[in-house]
Amino acid sequence: MSHEQFQHCIDECLRCMVACNHCYTSCLEEDNIGMMKECIRLDRECADICAFSAQAMSMNSSYAKQICKICADVCEACGNECKKHGPEHCQQCAEACFRCAEACRKMAA
Amino acid sequence: MSHEQFQHCIDECLRCMVACNHCYTSCLEEDNIGMMKECIRLDRECADICAFSAQAMSMNSSYAKQICKICADVCEACGNECKKHGPEHCQQCAEACFRCAEACRKMAA
Amino acid sequence: MSHEQFQHCIDECLRCMVACNHCYTSCLEEDNIGMMKECIRLDRECADICAFSAQAMSMNSSYAKQICKICADVCEACGNECKKHGPEHCQQCAEACFRCAEACRKMAA
Amino acid sequence: MSHEQFQHCIDECLRCMVACNHCYTSCLEEDNIGMMKECIRLDRECADICAFSAQAMSMNSSYAKQICKICADVCEACGNECKKHGPEHCQQCAEACFRCAEACRKMAA
Repeated sequence: MSHEQFQHCIDECLRCMVACNHCYTSCLEEDNIGMMKECIRLDRECADICAFSAQAMSMNSSYAKQICKICADVCEACGNECKKHGPEHCQQCAEACFRCAEACRKMAA
Repeated sequence: MSHEQFQHCIDECLRCMVACNHCYTSCLEEDNIGMMKECIRLDRECADICAFSAQAMSMNSSYAKQICKICADVCEACGNECKKHGPEHCQQCAEACFRCAEACRKMAA
Repeated sequence: MSHEQFQHCIDECLRCMVACNHCYTSCLEEDNIGMMKECIRLDRECADICAFSAQAMSMNSSYAKQICKICADVCEACGNECKKHGPEHCQQCAEACFRCAEACRKMAA
Repeated sequence: MSHEQFQHCIDECLRCMVACNHCYTSCLEEDNIGMMKECIRLDRECADICAFSAQAMSMNSSYAKQICKICADVCEACGNECKKHGPEHCQQCAEACFRCAEACRKMAA
């Protein structure tokens, strides 16, 4: 598979990485930070595996599918956590996570 | 500075990361791989620091400017190496590198 | 599981990361670089997933086991490639890869 | 410079990465998480740049010195934040950060 074929999934991963890092930084500034700790934890893990997946796909790794499978799981968990919270950054992050999870599921199939 | 303000530079870094990884993989498949070794070496380093810079900017790191400064240097070195070589992947990579170097210089200023 | 319990596997991953990066750099300097391209490719992927696994374990990620499972696969593939080649850096890398693969398999179990 | 010469600095970076990630995870579980947010933020950044520096040194990057210079700055900032806080994980992290900062300063010199 060429890097062009991976492009849609790469794009979703990178968009999700940025959304997760923005949500992470914003959660750390929320007054009720105690309620956001699971969101903070998952935002970081999700950003990191999204970046890792995008690197793997763009270098046409033989392990890209396996990595995207885990990425889909982390994105789903992160999206489910984010959608519980009111702030705009959480809602936008949840949306990016679910889109990325879907793209990664297809890649991993 | 907000993550939106960083968005242009983030986008260039991520585009450059993908171009460098594609060039890296393609260089490893070239017949004259012996002539491409500096290109391979710089492609990897450039992809890695572009990913790192994009993460730093998207989490609004206090060190983003310093990181972008190094990223600009690596992009410039990688672009200068790539533009010496004929293959399309090298030419496209050089272009992405120079665009990213320019965006990172502005960010670091 | 605490980060202490992960410590042995983390140590093997980090040792393997260093060995793979050293082998990678050395392979790029070999005269017969054309024969080393699969070694170069796997060294990079192996170094990267070893670093990623070590990060995941040290932050006590819920996904550490799944990540270590892939890490074991990559280490095994990299070790099998490296052991085909004569240079000391390849032999040392193979040994580090097999040790890391074993530690990651136990972690993933 | 060979990877052996970098070995001490690599070791300190990797030890610091593990200590920062452990402190990060533990801070997220503290009751007074509101007081730990700067510690959480810096722990993540410090772990990430320590991993990045170790990768750069172990692949003998031409940019290793510049990267270690930033790594020293982040380690120092993280150590100064951690040492303000009572928990054992913060105190241990501060110590790892200061050791790593010193090793990186020497490397960058």
